Order: sequence, then C-alpha cells, then structure tokens
Amino acid sequence: MKLGILGGGQLGRMMALAAAPLDIHCRVWEPEATACAQHYAEHLHKNYDDLAARELFLKDIDACTYEFENVPTPLIEALQSRITVNPPLLAISTSQDRLQEKAFFQSLDISTAPYCAVNSLQDLEAAVTKLGLPAVLKTCRFGYDGKGQFILRSTSDIQEAWKQLSGGSVPVSLILEGFIKFQREVSQVAVRSKQGDIRFYALSENVHRNGILYSSMAKPQDALSQSAQQQVRKVMEALNYVGVICVEFFDVAGKLIANEYAPRVHNSGHWTIEGAETSQFENHVRAVCGLPLGSTATRGHVATLNIIGKHPDAQKVCAINGAHLHVYGKSEKPARKLGHITLRCDNAISLQKSFDAAQSLIRM
Amino acid sequence: MKLGILGGGQLGRMMALAAAPLDIHCRVWEPEATACAQHYAEHLHKNYDDLAARELFLKDIDACTYEFENVPTPLIEALQSRITVNPPLLAISTSQDRLQEKAFFQSLDISTAPYCAVNSLQDLEAAVTKLGLPAVLKTCRFGYDGKGQFILRSTSDIQEAWKQLSGGSVPVSLILEGFIKFQREVSQVAVRSKQGDIRFYALSENVHRNGILYSSMAKPQDALSQSAQQQVRKVMEALNYVGVICVEFFDVAGKLIANEYAPRVHNSGHWTIEGAETSQFENHVRAVCGLPLGSTATRGHVATLNIIGKHPDAQKVCAINGAHLHVYGKSEKPARKLGHITLRCDNAISLQKSFDAAQSLIRM
Repeated sequence: MKLGILGGGQLGRMMALAAAPLDIHCRVWEPEATACAQHYAEHLHKNYDDLAARELFLKDIDACTYEFENVPTPLIEALQSRITVNPPLLAISTSQDRLQEKAFFQSLDISTAPYCAVNSLQDLEAAVTKLGLPAVLKTCRFGYDGKGQFILRSTSDIQEAWKQLSGGSVPVSLILEGFIKFQREVSQVAVRSKQGDIRFYALSENVHRNGILYSSMAKPQDALSQSAQQQVRKVMEALNYVGVICVEFFDVAGKLIANEYAPRVHNSGHWTIEGAETSQFENHVRAVCGLPLGSTATRGHVATLNIIGKHPDAQKVCAINGAHLHVYGKSEKPARKLGHITLRCDNAISLQKSFDAAQSLIRM
Repeated sequence: MKLGILGGGQLGRMMALAAAPLDIHCRVWEPEATACAQHYAEHLHKNYDDLAARELFLKDIDACTYEFENVPTPLIEALQSRITVNPPLLAISTSQDRLQEKAFFQSLDISTAPYCAVNSLQDLEAAVTKLGLPAVLKTCRFGYDGKGQFILRSTSDIQEAWKQLSGGSVPVSLILEGFIKFQREVSQVAVRSKQGDIRFYALSENVHRNGILYSSMAKPQDALSQSAQQQVRKVMEALNYVGVICVEFFDVAGKLIANEYAPRVHNSGHWTIEGAETSQFENHVRAVCGLPLGSTATRGHVATLNIIGKHPDAQKVCAINGAHLHVYGKSEKPARKLGHITLRCDNAISLQKSFDAAQSLIRM
C-alpha cells in the first residue's frame, strides 16, 4: 500500500516511520530539496503547481493526506477528484482562515476569544476600542509559530501593528483578538476513523516560548479532559473528519477557550510515540488508510521538550533516564525545530527529574 | 552519522527504523535485490566478494555491524582493518561453528547438551553409542530455522541422517547432540555498550513449530532470570561484546542448558519494540554507535507471534486490543518469516485474550 503525503518535513518523516511496520510506504510531495522525510519516503521534489508532478504524485497511491496546514486548497480540490484526501477539505480550508475558524467554533457553541475582522486602519482602531487592550493582531492566513502576529499593548502600537501586518500594497485580511489571560495552554489530540470511531489522547499541557512550542506534558487525569473531549468530538463530527486533529485551548479559570485547531498530527502529540499505546502518527496513518484505530491509552508519565535552533549532545541526552531522542535531520538555525526529546518514566517524580536534566541540555 | 549493516533483511529494516529518530542513517550491503530494508536504508546491492563494493560500503560510514550470523568472517576481518565492526569477530566466528560454540560455553562453566564431533559415518555410529538415542545430528555451520538438522530416533536412522547431512563429495563438519528433554525454551536478549555497561531484557519464553520460532512471551518475573543473566554476562564479558546478543536456553527442570547464541538482534526480542522502554534495535544501534544504552525495562504484559508463510488480514489484526502489526514487505512463501504481531496489554488476562485472537488470524 502507498500513502501520498503533501509536505515532507519532520511530520511526514515521523508518519513514514510509523507507516513502515504496517508495510505502508509513503511518497512525500515537497518542493524543498532538503525535505527531511526523504530518507524514509519517496521524495517528489517538485512545486505544487506542477501539473506533471501531480500525475507522478497520484501514480499508484492508495490514499492521500498532508502534514502542514498551509497546503493550497485548490491542489486538494484537484486531487480529491482522483483520490480520497483526508482530513477533508472543509477541515483544512476552515483552519486556514482565523475568521472562519473562530466562526466555526462559535457555530458549535465552543468558546473563543472575542475578535473583530480588520481590513483597514479604521477597522483596527474601532476593534481596539471594542475589545480593549492588550489585544493580538494576526494575519487571517498563513501564520505559524508566532509569525504573522503583533501584540498591541497601548494605542500607540496601532500604527506599527498595522504597518507590519497589513501587507501594504497587497492587503491581507487581519483579525484582532482580545487578549486572553489564561492559566495554562492545553491541547487535545484526537483521531477519527473512516467508520466514525473517535479516540482521544491524554490532554497535553503546553508551554510556548517566543511563540514556539517549548514543552508538552501528558495529563491523563486532567480535570478539563472531559470538556476538551466533548468539544473536539463536536469539531470532528461537524467536519466528518478522518485522521488526527489537534485543538488548542486556553485554560481560563477552569473553562476552556478554543484558540485554533490543526488538521494534522501535531507537535504537542509527539509524546505519544513512546507515551501512548499507539502513536498519533500510526493512528493517523491507520485512519487515512482505512484501518481500525489503535488504543490511545497513555503509558506512564510522559513529556516532550522541543529541540530548537541548536542540537544538544546526543551522548548526554541518551544517558538521561527514560529519554528518547528524536532528531529530524535538519541543520541548525535560530528558532528552527530540529527535534524533540521525550521523557517517559514510571512516576511523576522521576519524570520531573528527567525533564529537568533534559532542559539543562537545551539552549534556545 | 551513518551505520553500515551487512545484510538487509527484516532485522536490518527494523534496525534502520530504530536508528532514524537518532538521525543515524543506515547503509545495508545485501546481495539480494529484494532486500526488505531497502526502503528505509541505502541499499548496496552487490555480492560480498566484490572488492569495489567494499569501498562503496565503507565510504562515509562511522560504524559497522551485521544482521545475520552467517556473514563471511574473512569479510569482517577485512572490514575491521578499516572501521570498527561490532559485535566483535570472535563473537561471530565462535557462533558460526556449533563445536566451537559448545566448547566456548563449557569453558565458561555454562551447561550444554552432551555432544560429539562427527566427521565420518564411523564417528556417527560411535557418537550414537556414546550419547544414546534420540539425538540430533547437525551441520556445524550455516544452519538456521531448523535447517541442517536431523533427529535420530533409532539406529536405523543413522544411514539416512549421514546421507542427508554429510555433504557427500564435499564433506561438512557435523555434531551429534544428545537429546534434551526440556520443559521450556527460553532466551535472554541483552546488550553491552562500548563502555562495558550491560543491560538485560526480560527473559523470553519461546515456542517453536517446525523448527521456526512461533511465539515469544516476555517473562520479567521468571524464576530463571537471574541464572540466565549471570550466564549471558559471562558470555558478553568473555567476548568483550558490543551490541545486542541473544542466548537460547533449554529449561530442564529449572536448570538452564545453553543451546546456542546469536550475535545480533533476535526474533525472540521483537516484543521489545513496544514492550520495553528501549527496543533491542535501538539499543543495538546505540551500542555499536557508541551511545549510552537506554532502559531495557519491560512495559506491561507482552508477547510476539510470528507471521509465517501467509499474510493475515491487517484489518483484523489492527482491531485486536493491544496489537501492533509489523510486516516486513516480503512476498508469501511457505516457512518464510513475513512479519510479526506484538500484543501489549496491561494485564496477563487481556494479553492471553489478545494473543488467542491473533493466533486465530495466523495460519501456518
């Protein structure tokens, strides 16, 4: 069996590695020559608008998925006339526009931050008046890892925020979001099969630094698990979803406020490789290839730390109790995700000790 | 980092998959075009006596290992003048000759079956008189999965056994082994690092059918664990071993009789992929690449069933609680190992239920 994947970065790489034992081979379509999935998947090194490449991509594949959320939707539309693409088009098109995504959440009675559409400096001024400050101005489309965002703290920031994000002569749609004072950031990774079977991983408690995910810890007993699961179930069913999804929430005094969702495997679910009975990668592959899902039960106490910008000493990482090193084969560059370290231990005290040891090896 | 592996079958494939997260790439030297490791490793498709291929194999590799025990020792001798090869030459050369292997065990005060060297029909007759019947005649070299063996049950079998195994005009060395009436077959998989750190996996309780491993079950609390570990420690230290080893024993009324050892990752350790903190494949890679070893602790209750000759229905396998399907990408053929199913559950009762369900899907 062959699975076509749009995108060939670390998520595609880990998907290909998870597919291998099922004897499902992957073909990644990735315009970058350095695609780090290429050692473990067939690499179609072509631009996405290349029509001949489209035929090469489609040749002999049995299913199609993607590993990044900025896939051009016209490409998915074209592909799905020839092959089943999952997660479905509606899931990715909605997630690509923050305004649509927020409206979608609200249509399901899922709470979000207050927000206003911003298409002019006047809109921005009015939105600041309505929502108050601080507030976050974001591009509606194509933001990631904190890029395409500006935090406004006083009205004197309005001009600069507009200048940085408005796109100048090529205007882009923006959204101003009211600032959420949250206690924690959590995310719910879940998977839905073609038959509609839904399984939830333990809630992840996440820490971001400089807009990039720094760490995730599995919280199987979290008080907000049930609420998160109910909301993610609504999202998946509304989208007739197939595959792994991740919904990010803010925990505001014990109430979940949805931030955004990613229609794909997610960094905050990397701990599932060692920390769950079946990883998010394997379950995504099982779902999009029409296989029954595996158990999502948590195994032990587990957390993941991202390796960002600079590689740690592998010797030292491997010596930590319960440490599992994952290096993506990318060269060092500030703010680039190069890998992650998962710590899996039999109790919370050992986990904290290993987590602290791993943290000391990571310099951001 | 790049690891060269002699052999490119399923063991090389699983080694390459385990090396990937550490960003260690593998190159497999495998004369067979169908080498099933090739999708996940660079495949050097050349004969082992090809001198130009040797240079291609050595180019840019940082370490060298092997995945089958019949590697020509002159090749290892030639390679180790250029690069470190582990497990060491003495380990593989001893294991390739049943007489040397038995003498080695006995030199360490490790019990073996009684045995006699057989180089003529007269030798065989004398050996039968000495050891009694039943007894097993084996070729000293290049036997595997029950091949190169003949069980003698009466003196009338002597002629036929000699005819089948003696090699006719090209005589081969044989060994007659006294028949061991054992209660169980068990194996001890262990790993030793370059620094001499030794770690043991749980003892595996194995069942063979038609001379081929059928199932293995992890027995972390086995009464014979300590004895097995003591003996394997002696073996590894005597050989200055680096990498994973598997020693197979017969359990004769609570006493271990060593049968043979494999200087490599082993089928009876496949359960470690999901059932141990660090798999035998990752620990072998860590050892031969000079990294610290990972924990070998068992996770839950775990067993592996081999898929032999015929592929089961993947849909049905994936639907079993705690089942992990591993398919090696080989075509169906009687007696060929095509894959394995690992069952990992939280208690012994669930494991037995899943094991029975998986057994019903496997036809030999």
